[in-house]
Amino acid sequence: TDAPTDAPRRIDLAVIPGDGIGPEVTTEAVKVLLAAVGTDVEVALTEYELGAEHWLATGETLSDATLAALRTHDAILFGAVGAAPGDTLVPSGLIEREFLLKLRFSLDHYVNLRPTRLYAGVPSPLADPGVVDFVVVREGTEGPYTGNGGTLRGGTEHEVATEVSLNTAHGVERVVRDAFRRAAGRRGKLTLVHKHNVLVYAGHLWKRIVEAVAFEFPEVEHDYLHVDAAMIFLVTDPSRFDVIVTDNLFGDIVTDLAAAVSGGIGLAASANLNMDRSAPSMFEPVHGSAPDIAGRQIADPTAAILSAALLLRHLGLDGHAARIEQAVEADIASRTGTRTTTAVGDAIAAAVS
Amino acid sequence: TDAPTDAPRRIDLAVIPGDGIGPEVTTEAVKVLLAAVGTDVEVALTEYELGAEHWLATGETLSDATLAALRTHDAILFGAVGAAPGDTLVPSGLIEREFLLKLRFSLDHYVNLRPTRLYAGVPSPLADPGVVDFVVVREGTEGPYTGNGGTLRGGTEHEVATEVSLNTAHGVERVVRDAFRRAAGRRGKLTLVHKHNVLVYAGHLWKRIVEAVAFEFPEVEHDYLHVDAAMIFLVTDPSRFDVIVTDNLFGDIVTDLAAAVSGGIGLAASANLNMDRSAPSMFEPVHGSAPDIAGRQIADPTAAILSAALLLRHLGLDGHAARIEQAVEADIASRTGTRTTTAVGDAIAAAVS
Ligand SMILES: CC(C)[C@H](C(=O)O)[C@@H](O)C(=O)O
Ligand SMILES: CC(C)[C@H](C(=O)O)[C@@H](O)C(=O)O
Repeated sequence: TDAPTDAPRRIDLAVIPGDGIGPEVTTEAVKVLLAAVGTDVEVALTEYELGAEHWLATGETLSDATLAALRTHDAILFGAVGAAPGDTLVPSGLIEREFLLKLRFSLDHYVNLRPTRLYAGVPSPLADPGVVDFVVVREGTEGPYTGNGGTLRGGTEHEVATEVSLNTAHGVERVVRDAFRRAAGRRGKLTLVHKHNVLVYAGHLWKRIVEAVAFEFPEVEHDYLHVDAAMIFLVTDPSRFDVIVTDNLFGDIVTDLAAAVSGGIGLAASANLNMDRSAPSMFEPVHGSAPDIAGRQIADPTAAILSAALLLRHLGLDGHAARIEQAVEADIASRTGTRTTTAVGDAIAAAVS
Repeated sequence: TDAPTDAPRRIDLAVIPGDGIGPEVTTEAVKVLLAAVGTDVEVALTEYELGAEHWLATGETLSDATLAALRTHDAILFGAVGAAPGDTLVPSGLIEREFLLKLRFSLDHYVNLRPTRLYAGVPSPLADPGVVDFVVVREGTEGPYTGNGGTLRGGTEHEVATEVSLNTAHGVERVVRDAFRRAAGRRGKLTLVHKHNVLVYAGHLWKRIVEAVAFEFPEVEHDYLHVDAAMIFLVTDPSRFDVIVTDNLFGDIVTDLAAAVSGGIGLAASANLNMDRSAPSMFEPVHGSAPDIAGRQIADPTAAILSAALLLRHLGLDGHAARIEQAVEADIASRTGTRTTTAVGDAIAAAVS
């Protein structure tokens, strides 16, 4: 067995398939995960129905009871949530905020980890991408995502709308330290992305904390890029990056561009980590529910499968995680023509069994 | 002469060369502008010393007196401001905020116009860019750029930093209407870029205003992209865009990526427009002061020269503007090897004379 002695013998997973292509890709991720752990680890699965479909049917958002139940699991595998564009009954963004963001915030997922790798055989939109292999450590619990703000005189010509970004030393320091740790375990280079020449208050907080934490990691080189300059480097020289640490909103922007550069969001995995382990972490593909292609067996389950690998690694099952990643890498390298969602999952599951 | 009868016979320009490569590129922009208008238009030039160098020498930021003087001109040609990284005496971002942003806000430059074109002969970092020809209409006077926010318990482990984005119906509507007008004069397609599923208050204000103004422009098709999805399209299908309208911060991010995709910020021009003409508009290359290459005659003055063309167009000298743009296009198409900053300016000036 790959499992070191302190690796778990039993894991208790919550699965949230969600909407659109969520169920299809999650089915394949679970299949591969089970195949990879085989008899080394006993896996208990509990499925939770959450998302737009469920909300439309029941009017329920994420209840305290469901949150409490989710907290009892070792980890959460998440598909995607989001209404179909035709679902005019669903207020825009409600599902994302009431389910996805509420989970990230309630379970204190302060490290939103998004590895970016251009696999051999994957076409990049860049003419000369070079070696693309970095991770984005996106803050997950504060910044412009806190929902603070409001509207005055809404709907009139005198309307004022505010958005308040909240940033705390506590919140920034823990994610910056996590990013330095990861950089120390990789190529030893950390880049802070922000916009401190304009967002002075938040920007200087981030800069000061990076400077302070850097003393604990003398082996890690660090630099700084304004978010606009980061855009340029992501398309002209993505191999300059090793670890990027940034806030919640810049992280959202940077990671979609990073995913595009490395072959698309069909391959982009993510982990919403509570590194204190005071609540379960959650693993999800970066892509959304893509209602337009749902149920047609054409969604690529690779991002969901790679997210399952991140889940196993977070639980200490590094060997099993690596096996999935290697199988995905081999599968990608040998892709020809199109396969169904199930066929991709079957092939990778067979390779890790 | 190209000048229609209502075109000005005399223009009174303020020139702010600024720091770093600002003076070099501005010299070439002025040279080309003068060559293009020839004897059709009399040009008065007044130079203003502003920027990091000036601040270090005098301690002066942009005074009310200077602002009042600048207001008397027909337009402002701006190079670049920003301290050299070695100038540790200059607080980070101070120069950008106290000069550049203060000018944009004081002179009510609510349309920050950034045309994006991939010229023939320019290598794009994209493998298959297609036809790239769109304009970004970036809001210039509000959003997260207003400097609102603050720091509580600064420097302690309990620090809280806020950034407040301010958005008004007045501010959004005027820029959205301007964007629709431009779309109507182009290929008739407008894309709003925002993040309304997370930034609900500001996002819905933008969405509602776009929907409302759209009724005035039935010939313009409009759609919406979240900023993260816009990142993906900018590298996978930039030809889908005609006019992008977005807020100040998203506009900053989108335009640097757009510039990178179309060959780099060395070619990216911009106009900070006060469309009510209650104050002079300002024309500047998107690039910064690039202190590392200053004074070495290696900066590309093309972005500054194209900004001068935008200036002439804004003043009603369309024919003269077009002549510069055509000369730049021809110059770019025939580029081989490297030339000095002056040589590029000389070549384009000769072509428009
Ligand atoms: C759906 C949306 C709320 C979410 C985000 O903005 O974080 C998504 O874009 C992501 O990156 O996971
Ligand atoms: C220098 C900086 C304040 C400025 C901005 O953020 O607007 C620059 O990046 C730009 O795009 O003109």
